Amino acid sequence: MEIIDGKKVADQIKSEIAAEVEKMVAEGKKRPHLAVIIVGHDGGSETYVAHKVKSCAQVGFTSTKIAFEDTVTETELLEKINELNNDTDIDGFIVQLPLPKHIDEQKVIEAIDYRKDVDGFHPVNVGRMSIGLPCFVSATPSGIIELLRRYEIPTQGKHCVVIGRSNIVGKPIANLMMQKTYPGDATVTVCHSRTRNLKEICLSADIIIAALGSPAFLKEDMVKEGAVIIDVGTTRIPCSTTKSGFRLCGDVDFEHVAPKCSYITPVPGGVGPMTIVSLLRNTLQAARQRQ
Amino acid sequence: MEIIDGKKVADQIKSEIAAEVEKMVAEGKKRPHLAVIIVGHDGGSETYVAHKVKSCAQVGFTSTKIAFEDTVTETELLEKINELNNDTDIDGFIVQLPLPKHIDEQKVIEAIDYRKDVDGFHPVNVGRMSIGLPCFVSATPSGIIELLRRYEIPTQGKHCVVIGRSNIVGKPIANLMMQKTYPGDATVTVCHSRTRNLKEICLSADIIIAALGSPAFLKEDMVKEGAVIIDVGTTRIPCSTTKSGFRLCGDVDFEHVAPKCSYITPVPGGVGPMTIVSLLRNTLQAARQRQ
Repeated sequence: MEIIDGKKVADQIKSEIAAEVEKMVAEGKKRPHLAVIIVGHDGGSETYVAHKVKSCAQVGFTSTKIAFEDTVTETELLEKINELNNDTDIDGFIVQLPLPKHIDEQKVIEAIDYRKDVDGFHPVNVGRMSIGLPCFVSATPSGIIELLRRYEIPTQGKHCVVIGRSNIVGKPIANLMMQKTYPGDATVTVCHSRTRNLKEICLSADIIIAALGSPAFLKEDMVKEGAVIIDVGTTRIPCSTTKSGFRLCGDVDFEHVAPKCSYITPVPGGVGPMTIVSLLRNTLQAARQRQ
Repeated sequence: MEIIDGKKVADQIKSEIAAEVEKMVAEGKKRPHLAVIIVGHDGGSETYVAHKVKSCAQVGFTSTKIAFEDTVTETELLEKINELNNDTDIDGFIVQLPLPKHIDEQKVIEAIDYRKDVDGFHPVNVGRMSIGLPCFVSATPSGIIELLRRYEIPTQGKHCVVIGRSNIVGKPIANLMMQKTYPGDATVTVCHSRTRNLKEICLSADIIIAALGSPAFLKEDMVKEGAVIIDVGTTRIPCSTTKSGFRLCGDVDFEHVAPKCSYITPVPGGVGPMTIVSLLRNTLQAARQRQ
């Protein structure tokens, strides 16, 4: 059994991106520039945005944080998006979700020029991914694919079971895993709350991607010997022994499942660290396409 | 065992559309207007386009056929698309595929205003479908969903196996069948050329959608008792007893599979007749959105 070290892979990719940026700068090109819009003061969102800004600095990107109070109107936000769409110095930008209830998230996502949509949430990018065309793939599915690639995990003809059908993880990772490429080319089953005999389906899986958001849901009796387990869950569980007062818990009962696996991602330190790296990779790609 | 009569359902939907159009006209609205671009003289394409034009007449739509020789340049074709995008009288239009090799099909598809893309091939429509937003769904997957609906076939929690992962059938029908709606909400497995133990997977299926284009591929020993079988295959097989010199053969060994099924679509007369109806429905929807 090998633990997939997402932190290590993420650090390695950051080094590769940093080297690429220095090469671009040496060639007289400008540094990739990511802008991040944040609305209001949600604690989680502020932490994520701070991480994103810090990661930009680590790899030599320019970054701009644009903060609005949660009283901002939809029109004001859309105006800012339009401004960023037309700002030739900005290679890519994201609007940190969730947004306050008075703002239509889907409208905001669709207002972003898909060529700058480094979060990969715009329908054009979702559609291009499904068709198999070049596009920005959203952070979590992209991170999973990169982990499979870096660990050289065979996927062709394997049975990949995805638990969860969210628009940001389940559906896109299922789409990617069925594409005629590596990593991919797998037989893909998408399971969800309505699925019957989930246990039986999981037992037939060579690869399980658990993305349902239910702590320690996947038990050892649902996993066949030698399976590859990717755990996307990150539920906050109250915890008296950590400074923050909580700990992150994955969708997999790691302690009991791990001994049966060929590969498994831990939580934290598995898929999580890869998500910001995916955003950085998309931004680098956007910058390359614009220069 | 009940045979799903696609011809009958298609005729019924055409009557419904015709009634809707007469209502629109009585309210002083204009008739829905579909334009069809055809390039060259491919026999299959000319037949399809003729059927589409004829179907428009049957339901009271205005239609315009725009024919180019296969010497047309990509630029000329893109100019015509731009003209149709801006023509307020045209509610929707399609470019009949395939196109000659010197024309980039994907570029042509993406040039169509997605609000007039009644073929549902534009990445925006593909992406919106995956996300679960209102969109134009392409003809074959849309036709399959409508057959399931009209025959009131239960799908929630059922195991739906899709054989084939093409961009026009396999991937979109898989996406639709996993959406949290009816018809849909199924556990979905996508199989393809790389799939191992296909027989075992098919035997676990409550619904099989065969869309691989291999005549009589699905045999009785791959189907469990009471399964629902949707046959998307339409391979032309040489045949001495028909006037055309060929007959259409589905992906299912109908004669032997049918007795085991609860429902099955025949070929011809199953999914086929539904495809043009899907195009008409999309055009009606486009017209409604524009008035």
